Amino acid sequence: MKSITTRRTFVGAGAAALAVGFCEVLPDTAYADTSRPNVLGPLPGYAPQIGTFVSQLTWMREVNGVLAATKGLTQADLDSLFDKNANTIGALMLHLAATEKYYQMNTFDGMKWDSWSEDIKKKWDAAMNLGDAGRATIKGHDRDYYVNILHDVREKTLAEFRKKDDAWFLAVDKNMEWGPTNNLCKWFHVCEHEAHHTGQIALLRKRLPGAKPDSGSGGAA
Amino acid sequence: MKSITTRRTFVGAGAAALAVGFCEVLPDTAYADTSRPNVLGPLPGYAPQIGTFVSQLTWMREVNGVLAATKGLTQADLDSLFDKNANTIGALMLHLAATEKYYQMNTFDGMKWDSWSEDIKKKWDAAMNLGDAGRATIKGHDRDYYVNILHDVREKTLAEFRKKDDAWFLAVDKNMEWGPTNNLCKWFHVCEHEAHHTGQIALLRKRLPGAKPDSGSGGAA
Repeated sequence: MKSITTRRTFVGAGAAALAVGFCEVLPDTAYADTSRPNVLGPLPGYAPQIGTFVSQLTWMREVNGVLAATKGLTQADLDSLFDKNANTIGALMLHLAATEKYYQMNTFDGMKWDSWSEDIKKKWDAAMNLGDAGRATIKGHDRDYYVNILHDVREKTLAEFRKKDDAWFLAVDKNMEWGPTNNLCKWFHVCEHEAHHTGQIALLRKRLPGAKPDSGSGGAA
Repeated sequence: MKSITTRRTFVGAGAAALAVGFCEVLPDTAYADTSRPNVLGPLPGYAPQIGTFVSQLTWMREVNGVLAATKGLTQADLDSLFDKNANTIGALMLHLAATEKYYQMNTFDGMKWDSWSEDIKKKWDAAMNLGDAGRATIKGHDRDYYVNILHDVREKTLAEFRKKDDAWFLAVDKNMEWGPTNNLCKWFHVCEHEAHHTGQIALLRKRLPGAKPDSGSGGAA
């Protein structure tokens, strides 16, 4: 999809700071588009700050996250438990989806954390909390199962983001347990959370039964 | 430090999209400040997009990254090797610093990747590449050693960011191996890279000699 461009000029940050109001125009080369996955920035269809964030979230998923880290894994791989305290790779994938689902309800629907219906908790809590419940219930699925769930949850996220403005994105929730938190921060956490578990998946994957010995190169532990 | 606020009004995304030029003013409640670590957004002293990114980078480091994940670890913990293909937690900490250092040279100094001097490579390559060289050379330091290096590297990053504008931040480097990449993307990678290795550190930490058995709760693998 060709990105929308509008002729604009850039107002330097110095001049902007001195202005009574604040007005920043972004160079049209900044607009991200799907033909350039490593060019992040505002996106057509989203408010500017939200769009820039969505380009980060998309990069995390499409370029350096759980999809790349699980490429080619079989059901047996996804169900493999490294030790009795570990989570399977499949469970970690579902955990990412559950986390995003819960932040959707909290931020888009304004629901207090954990005020979800019993039906929702029954469906998602094991994936959210992992541990014994996760180990007991999340198994027996191939990679497509998890990928499709992640995709569906993400489509909902994007649809909701398209309806929002940057004032909402920066608005502060004073009711979060760990202190005042804005929607940008909550969603940034969702994003870095994928990187966090991707690092774990990379480490676990190299230690699956039958995995090739490490080549000695660097990177993941 | 009290954040700088300026009276401003918010221009809705719809109106902005219709405007010939693009002008978004951000609510002054959006300005992040250190008294509210979970409120991300533009920061005083930085161009707007850079400031929002710096607030993410700072959150990653101060709230949910390698500092929290390594709290209380001893030198023995930091030098502990999980298996022969693993990296020590100390090495992973130094790896984060090396990565940031290299992206400083690439983005702030315009240096082509890996065109660094022999002195730089001698100092940082083992930490960057990990593997056998990392295992052989990165050991014998307490936590403060790594924390101080991470801090010094970060101070340099922030000083350089303060000099830049958003046009630079969104500018595309056509010479990166994996395709056109802008500075925002490169630095977002530096940020998520910390989350990636923090996930690994959390997993490794629970398996250090002498670590308490897992409580059965969820989270890190």
